[in-house]
Amino acid sequence: MHAVQQSDAAEQDLLEFYRRVRARTEELCGPLEIEDYIPQPIVDVSPPKWNIAHTTWFFEEMILKQFVPGYEPFDPAFGFLFNSYYNSIGDRTARDRRGDISRPTVKQVFAYRKHVDERMSQLLARDEGKQAALTELVTLGLNHEQQHQELFLTDLKYTFSTNPLLPVYDASFAQVEDIETAGRELIEMPAGIYEIGYNGEGFCFDNELGRQRVFLEDYAISRRLVTNREFKEFIDDGGYRNALLWHSEGWDWVNREHVEAPLYWHDRDGRFFNYTLAGLREVVPDAPVCHVSFYEASAFAEWKGMRLATEFEWEAANDKFRWGRRWEWTNSAYLPYPGFRKGEGAVGEYNGKFMINQMVLRGASVATPAGHSRPTYRNFFHPHLRWQFTGIRLAQ
Amino acid sequence: MHAVQQSDAAEQDLLEFYRRVRARTEELCGPLEIEDYIPQPIVDVSPPKWNIAHTTWFFEEMILKQFVPGYEPFDPAFGFLFNSYYNSIGDRTARDRRGDISRPTVKQVFAYRKHVDERMSQLLARDEGKQAALTELVTLGLNHEQQHQELFLTDLKYTFSTNPLLPVYDASFAQVEDIETAGRELIEMPAGIYEIGYNGEGFCFDNELGRQRVFLEDYAISRRLVTNREFKEFIDDGGYRNALLWHSEGWDWVNREHVEAPLYWHDRDGRFFNYTLAGLREVVPDAPVCHVSFYEASAFAEWKGMRLATEFEWEAANDKFRWGRRWEWTNSAYLPYPGFRKGEGAVGEYNGKFMINQMVLRGASVATPAGHSRPTYRNFFHPHLRWQFTGIRLAQ
Amino acid sequence: MHAVQQSDAAEQDLLEFYRRVRARTEELCGPLEIEDYIPQPIVDVSPPKWNIAHTTWFFEEMILKQFVPGYEPFDPAFGFLFNSYYNSIGDRTARDRRGDISRPTVKQVFAYRKHVDERMSQLLARDEGKQAALTELVTLGLNHEQQHQELFLTDLKYTFSTNPLLPVYDASFAQVEDIETAGRELIEMPAGIYEIGYNGEGFCFDNELGRQRVFLEDYAISRRLVTNREFKEFIDDGGYRNALLWHSEGWDWVNREHVEAPLYWHDRDGRFFNYTLAGLREVVPDAPVCHVSFYEASAFAEWKGMRLATEFEWEAANDKFRWGRRWEWTNSAYLPYPGFRKGEGAVGEYNGKFMINQMVLRGASVATPAGHSRPTYRNFFHPHLRWQFTGIRLAQ
Amino acid sequence: MHAVQQSDAAEQDLLEFYRRVRARTEELCGPLEIEDYIPQPIVDVSPPKWNIAHTTWFFEEMILKQFVPGYEPFDPAFGFLFNSYYNSIGDRTARDRRGDISRPTVKQVFAYRKHVDERMSQLLARDEGKQAALTELVTLGLNHEQQHQELFLTDLKYTFSTNPLLPVYDASFAQVEDIETAGRELIEMPAGIYEIGYNGEGFCFDNELGRQRVFLEDYAISRRLVTNREFKEFIDDGGYRNALLWHSEGWDWVNREHVEAPLYWHDRDGRFFNYTLAGLREVVPDAPVCHVSFYEASAFAEWKGMRLATEFEWEAANDKFRWGRRWEWTNSAYLPYPGFRKGEGAVGEYNGKFMINQMVLRGASVATPAGHSRPTYRNFFHPHLRWQFTGIRLAQ
Repeated sequence: MHAVQQSDAAEQDLLEFYRRVRARTEELCGPLEIEDYIPQPIVDVSPPKWNIAHTTWFFEEMILKQFVPGYEPFDPAFGFLFNSYYNSIGDRTARDRRGDISRPTVKQVFAYRKHVDERMSQLLARDEGKQAALTELVTLGLNHEQQHQELFLTDLKYTFSTNPLLPVYDASFAQVEDIETAGRELIEMPAGIYEIGYNGEGFCFDNELGRQRVFLEDYAISRRLVTNREFKEFIDDGGYRNALLWHSEGWDWVNREHVEAPLYWHDRDGRFFNYTLAGLREVVPDAPVCHVSFYEASAFAEWKGMRLATEFEWEAANDKFRWGRRWEWTNSAYLPYPGFRKGEGAVGEYNGKFMINQMVLRGASVATPAGHSRPTYRNFFHPHLRWQFTGIRLAQ
Repeated sequence: MHAVQQSDAAEQDLLEFYRRVRARTEELCGPLEIEDYIPQPIVDVSPPKWNIAHTTWFFEEMILKQFVPGYEPFDPAFGFLFNSYYNSIGDRTARDRRGDISRPTVKQVFAYRKHVDERMSQLLARDEGKQAALTELVTLGLNHEQQHQELFLTDLKYTFSTNPLLPVYDASFAQVEDIETAGRELIEMPAGIYEIGYNGEGFCFDNELGRQRVFLEDYAISRRLVTNREFKEFIDDGGYRNALLWHSEGWDWVNREHVEAPLYWHDRDGRFFNYTLAGLREVVPDAPVCHVSFYEASAFAEWKGMRLATEFEWEAANDKFRWGRRWEWTNSAYLPYPGFRKGEGAVGEYNGKFMINQMVLRGASVATPAGHSRPTYRNFFHPHLRWQFTGIRLAQ
Repeated sequence: MHAVQQSDAAEQDLLEFYRRVRARTEELCGPLEIEDYIPQPIVDVSPPKWNIAHTTWFFEEMILKQFVPGYEPFDPAFGFLFNSYYNSIGDRTARDRRGDISRPTVKQVFAYRKHVDERMSQLLARDEGKQAALTELVTLGLNHEQQHQELFLTDLKYTFSTNPLLPVYDASFAQVEDIETAGRELIEMPAGIYEIGYNGEGFCFDNELGRQRVFLEDYAISRRLVTNREFKEFIDDGGYRNALLWHSEGWDWVNREHVEAPLYWHDRDGRFFNYTLAGLREVVPDAPVCHVSFYEASAFAEWKGMRLATEFEWEAANDKFRWGRRWEWTNSAYLPYPGFRKGEGAVGEYNGKFMINQMVLRGASVATPAGHSRPTYRNFFHPHLRWQFTGIRLAQ
Repeated sequence: MHAVQQSDAAEQDLLEFYRRVRARTEELCGPLEIEDYIPQPIVDVSPPKWNIAHTTWFFEEMILKQFVPGYEPFDPAFGFLFNSYYNSIGDRTARDRRGDISRPTVKQVFAYRKHVDERMSQLLARDEGKQAALTELVTLGLNHEQQHQELFLTDLKYTFSTNPLLPVYDASFAQVEDIETAGRELIEMPAGIYEIGYNGEGFCFDNELGRQRVFLEDYAISRRLVTNREFKEFIDDGGYRNALLWHSEGWDWVNREHVEAPLYWHDRDGRFFNYTLAGLREVVPDAPVCHVSFYEASAFAEWKGMRLATEFEWEAANDKFRWGRRWEWTNSAYLPYPGFRKGEGAVGEYNGKFMINQMVLRGASVATPAGHSRPTYRNFFHPHLRWQFTGIRLAQ
């Protein structure tokens, strides 16, 4: 990560930023029952309790232990319980067993948050931005928590979707299905050298750095996202049954998992509904398609005689179209930029070790916290995953 | 099941029996936090919430719908959510996905219990034992709930044991480790025909019926259970590393699962502790060994130059030794008695369809509800399972 | 095993018996191409090469090394390569990897057989039956080889059946589909004590010993085997889709494996053919049904309102019906008789360690070598397996 | 693929090229026993019989059926048996079941080769290069067969390596362990635009086309390959036990598979041997390390404080170092070039559908047929695979 100077006014006051982000996480918990904090139906999603404890653990483990002399951890066992994947910090709960752990209770986890928040507030008030290393780590911790705010929603959505009662999390989430109004034309981009990667003054993740020059041949990219209506045409045309449209491993996935529509779609006598955080709703034809895998995005593009953009093409043209409602699959694998450097210590494990077998998504989604997006932001997931708010933009 | 007349005074008043059993279930919930009701770490154990809802479902589905004209279910979705395995009743939550379901809340499940209890109380008060079919089904339902009271404890113990905090459920459970005081001599039993199976006036399960004559050759059976001390000798003698002591599939299990001691034992620098519902406690040498699989019981017997009794040998001699602290593995497979008849309708699925690949355990355990044991009771589990309070009695 | 005196004239001359059995194995190899000796499509079946080497290994490892001073093994590596499951002898090729081993060649394996046969012939000629232990082991080895002759055929049938060419092994195997001509009546058997287990003078396996008295209640057993015609009625009546007919684990198996008919049946536009060692042939309606699992046998019996006999019922009545064409599933688990004793040393691993999770089959099949069957013979397989020539006889 | 004009003299005479390639395949079969043609120990490797039949199938299916009017297939079943992955052509033997198929015999497969060779020779003699489409397809078929010649060796090596006898295929393969003599200096490459992709007159695969301009920042690449000696230092320094050197999925792979050295290495009392096609040989310290996965290559580079080159960096510098002994892992994912176009019909499945989850290897190996390599050649495998002759070249 990278945080020489905070350009954003709110971020300039780090303590205020801290309070705002931490409060937002607790706001997200508002509609939950205690029971909702526990289940983990698949390895990819984490229980809310784990989520809100882990983001707190980050501040205790990475910052308080280092910057507060004689800091006593709230509970020594939490280091094991709420570490996600930092090998340099030690052993941890197996990733697929987070839902087995009923204790500590939710109440205790909120007490843990409160404890850490008090110590962090004292520390930040005392420091007043004097130590650059502290500022940098806190900024990373808050961006980390914002990432988990999005995961909080995507993971909860997945978990609720497995419950036959299809619970409503928050009725206001119905309006995420805003329609795509952009025109159908393609944006033509000329061949040439483009500068790629972050070079601002604010925060960015380490994987955006190593700004580089990339030569792009002529290309064109769509102003609009693919809609549910268009995706329905793909389904109706037998897209899920035509091997020639798919990557070989995508085709295996379709057949093994019996995939016939985007995630959360329910076919009720020929009408499609989809599960949303506002409950089951009829699919809105002109809204951008959501919850598709890279394989589906890619097969759809093939069916259209087009292709997905690379992440470089996307970034070079990003100021020419509206983005931010769907994470947009690119045809770029998640790999280091030429000048990529891992951070020192545990934060070095943040991004680099995942640079294999994943595809880059660009943009942001309806679930991304305000302020937590940039044209250079690199999200990444395995090509078969689709529980994020993912969508499709075509190129050629 | 079978319930012509209730011999037990308490059971003669069915409503009183109903209230007592139902109240006992709720008593068991006393020490739980809301979070504890949810997790299901392995398919074999059920979450407490599911447990207390499913036993209630049994009364609603099997009795109220049939005996109360115009009965309206508390919530129609619960039929799907809380069915365990009754194919004749319909689809249901997959058995390994019970821990994914956070809603209905625990509070709602207690409301469900209350609703059903009120209707059942009215029904029983009105009926006064006039309808034999009703009496029979209610008695079955209550025995079913008692079985789930034992599962409540064994399942919770397993779930808590996977939590690094090793939570205490109830400190009074420490005293289950009472020592084995019986003498070392064997009880000699003469060859002859023995009558096996239930022939009393009270309740029994269908699998105990079809009373039969069984010819037993001369045998001897131990007055005492195998203790932790003796089992420790087996470990120290390399019992877990000597293939010749084990069934072939037991040996595969030992190696695949890296089994080196009974379930819940922790080796801390050469001293053995075991997780109990009262937390982690040092193993009591003279208490009966607990939480062993059939494979371990059988390998231990082989190591001793002895064997496990058959369920018939056990039953024929049961009045000559103390039993009831451990479910005792027998060397009998769980199969129907000659005159076994499945019940009509859904209750016919209660026992018969499990009569393959499981071994019979006789007796009862420290977790078995008072009154819920008989010399003819046939418990059964797969040979590798050990989360029940299982133990070993030798024969030759 | 047990071989005090050989009652059979052929067996009295052990060398003659040796030569006959060994020659029969090689006769079975007659129709094979070299390529056929290698594949192992599933763990349950062994490649012919392994089969004919392993039976030879038995004589080298168990007999020549012990009875011929200074015996030099044909090739020291074969001890590892061709051990089946004897832990007391040492490590071995993993059971599911036997098909990966192309060398030694088939030619070398025949040379191995020749080498061992010469040494065995010299040994037997020299000994003239003087050493009882030798006679006993050789008799066991020959019975072992006869078991592998049956496996040779069942395994090859399975392997060939996975080849889209459906190769013919031997056209004369078409006639195994002889029709069932016995009458439909049941044989009534009175309650009483029956003697069970081997008590003759000839050879038997150790699992038949410990002759015991068994009390049987009144029962009746069918004179005839269930035919393909009857089994087809079960299929047509939806037997494979009715959960209530099946054991719970059987029902899981049916659904997981998409079972819709006996193994090797092919539905070609509504007409049923089955793969046989003589190639694909139309199913003969009045031949006994073949290649069914215990689960199918049991579901069929349930559908008929009948049941499978226990192995004791079968043995007590066996002289009243014709048997020997199908291994008949019983409803008895494979467990030790009361007086069961394991042999000393490696032969002790022959039977005892498999006495869990398997069901007993009685009788013999069209693939059983002549002379290798007895009324007390106990065959055993897991309940889902059906690549043996298995069939169904009903009881009530 | 792409084959407008053949620049190579031998390839200008297509019939001569056909004969030479086809003969080479049969030469490779020279040391095999019939048995060796059958086993398939893992899904990634194919049996020799399948290999030599599949390359023949390519000519029959893709060429003879199209270009020879009234062509009668040698055996209609072979279309199913020997199709590899062409969905547009139809169903086929499951990829992991190729080793189960003993028939057709090896002799029949050679007859199949002969039959197809005769028809192909007639066709080519008749055509004399007049039909460009034919020339193009034949050239593709021959390059395809050359790819399978390399697979023939790598697959056989894997299969033989699982045999405890560690058979020798050909003693002359010992000399592949030539030592690395290049100097230790890095080749400095200046930033700039480089042209990437094939633009010659000869044959290339479709994935090399869409020649593009790529901007590379300054970089340096090693003149030499990493040797066994250097890799041994990595092992000795605990490289396989240090999570921080590995990709997260690489670390999972190391632990799950218990990886401790390159594939085929055997630690015998501290001395390392490796299995080769000439049998077990002591590891040659100064030979280039072989049979490492992308994960190992990448962890090694991390340990050295360096990195792997991208495929573009490799191609831009390829004329400055010696390559061709090891397939060199790059840090580029296998993705389409900007102008990539799938071929029409079945050949369109040749490359494009594999462009996900695989990493590019550049160069060639000791097992690559002479003439079958180019600086633009893009080989690709999953990052955990290592049965190819893979090696490591460092960059920074």
